[in-house]
Amino acid sequence: MSKNDSITPLVQLEWDKAAALISRGKRIAVLTHVQPDGDAIGSMLGLTLALRQIGKEATPVVDGGLPERFAFLPASHEILSSVEDLEVDLIVSTDASDMKRLGNAGAGLRERGLPLVQLDHHQTNLLFGDANLVDARTAAAAEGVYDLLQYYNWPLTPEIAQCLLTGIVTDTLAFRTNSTTSALLGKAQVLMETGADLPEIVQRTLATIPTALMRFNAIVMQRFQLEPEGVIWVTITLEDFKEAGLSFDTYVGLSGYMIQSEDAVISATLKQLPEGGTDISMRAVPGYNVAQIALSLGGGGHLLAAGCTLDMPLDEAVQTLLPMLKAEARRGEKLYT
Amino acid sequence: MSKNDSITPLVQLEWDKAAALISRGKRIAVLTHVQPDGDAIGSMLGLTLALRQIGKEATPVVDGGLPERFAFLPASHEILSSVEDLEVDLIVSTDASDMKRLGNAGAGLRERGLPLVQLDHHQTNLLFGDANLVDARTAAAAEGVYDLLQYYNWPLTPEIAQCLLTGIVTDTLAFRTNSTTSALLGKAQVLMETGADLPEIVQRTLATIPTALMRFNAIVMQRFQLEPEGVIWVTITLEDFKEAGLSFDTYVGLSGYMIQSEDAVISATLKQLPEGGTDISMRAVPGYNVAQIALSLGGGGHLLAAGCTLDMPLDEAVQTLLPMLKAEARRGEKLYT
Repeated sequence: MSKNDSITPLVQLEWDKAAALISRGKRIAVLTHVQPDGDAIGSMLGLTLALRQIGKEATPVVDGGLPERFAFLPASHEILSSVEDLEVDLIVSTDASDMKRLGNAGAGLRERGLPLVQLDHHQTNLLFGDANLVDARTAAAAEGVYDLLQYYNWPLTPEIAQCLLTGIVTDTLAFRTNSTTSALLGKAQVLMETGADLPEIVQRTLATIPTALMRFNAIVMQRFQLEPEGVIWVTITLEDFKEAGLSFDTYVGLSGYMIQSEDAVISATLKQLPEGGTDISMRAVPGYNVAQIALSLGGGGHLLAAGCTLDMPLDEAVQTLLPMLKAEARRGEKLYT
Repeated sequence: MSKNDSITPLVQLEWDKAAALISRGKRIAVLTHVQPDGDAIGSMLGLTLALRQIGKEATPVVDGGLPERFAFLPASHEILSSVEDLEVDLIVSTDASDMKRLGNAGAGLRERGLPLVQLDHHQTNLLFGDANLVDARTAAAAEGVYDLLQYYNWPLTPEIAQCLLTGIVTDTLAFRTNSTTSALLGKAQVLMETGADLPEIVQRTLATIPTALMRFNAIVMQRFQLEPEGVIWVTITLEDFKEAGLSFDTYVGLSGYMIQSEDAVISATLKQLPEGGTDISMRAVPGYNVAQIALSLGGGGHLLAAGCTLDMPLDEAVQTLLPMLKAEARRGEKLYT
């Protein structure tokens, strides 16, 4: 359905291999990526509950633990933050495009020589599992889990539905992204009918931000820059977070806001990190590709939403990134003019 | 599906009466409310095209004409801004809760003694038609038009689908409002499958704002206020618009932004008008009701999104409105805590 069909979506669905590994597994660690978003947590918990429905002992693990805002999800209180005392015979991961994204939890288990089934939807996925279930046509890893349940004919419960719809809603910003297909709307309808509460999910995930972040955004947005090429960007310093009384790892989301500028085709937020590096978040309108830029800088993501971390101070990161963004802004062509 | 079931949704569906009037009509003016939003234009154009499919001569009219951002919609260039030279025998209106909202176009035609069929989804609808098709359970007037097509078994074309999905997407902020049901997702899926382009609609309506408005918002949001009761509010002056180089009737949308504050249950934007009055836009989280406040001040809307115009200067409007908002904030109870 995507109009960005100049790039072939990555699809590697090793259903039989994955089924064989899962059928042999008795105790399964279900992992997702560090700094988890709603799709990471939703797809991980949905798959955990689904594995339990077919008789497996499944334990969700996230390096760093559960972000408080997802504590409304079923089984979220069971999430472990470390694999130290966990005895399992299979690793399953969701929403991670490479091994590194699984953090210490992934590394710790993989060192034990355990097999890995990985399910993901990132175009930049490195196919790092012993069985890969990667479909970049799906809008969320949670949609991939939905497809898995359909494919294997596993039961869908209200709790699983709530987790999966949370993943879909957060990754598509409630069906706003280019990746939203008519099929996805049909799946969301089934999830609601099964018991997922869409208004609650929207209210708890998308529709709530810290009041201090509103003040922070108003201050930071005084200094955004719009380049003639259609690149809109802003820098954030550690000082900005300190002044607003916000932790520096607060999710800010300014790239998603700035890309709405009618003059912009690419947006970027460059954030100073405590260790001296710079975190970069990029967005694009349909017709452009920031995944390639992220990948070339050691990061990853989707065509229209990607990110990376540069091992250089803020000003140097601006000098490095801006020419790349401008070149892509000149190369691409806006779909809706 | 809404959890605000303490208030019974207004439903008055006079299908037979409406069908009789429409079947007698040959030349139909299809009207919508002044200062039209996406649902006004989308439902009006969708119904216009649907009436043509069943052999009627239908002409869309909006007092004030077409806002440029909806010029991508089929038949949008045919919209008249006045009824002066228009000869018709029936009026059909969409998305207007009372006669006043149809502006000079409505008044001009109604003075000729023409019958009126009105379709709407506002809880505050005054049932002002000769036949009323009002369903406050629908998330958008465009959903009401979809239901009408189903009920009368009229054909759905790709052009109609594009108009109706635009109405649904803009009024639900892409399925984010409390009014979004599983049935609505199913209807949206049908509209996409018929030919509506969801990514295009989102890109053209929700995902695009003037760059000057970003600067404007950053400046205005320096001074928002949060009351201990959970009322978040901000004032906007004519001077603010002038400084930003924006027309004072630019759609700002700050109430919708501010209600996302995790400390807020009600938000309000109070905007100075050139004639000396004050325009008020309000939002609430599920569990509260701003429609009642709007209605008591001569306006209207939905439980969680309503507005009105006060014939008093900005500071007086603040003094009038704030106590009402605080009282409602104390009365209501948050659904998701």
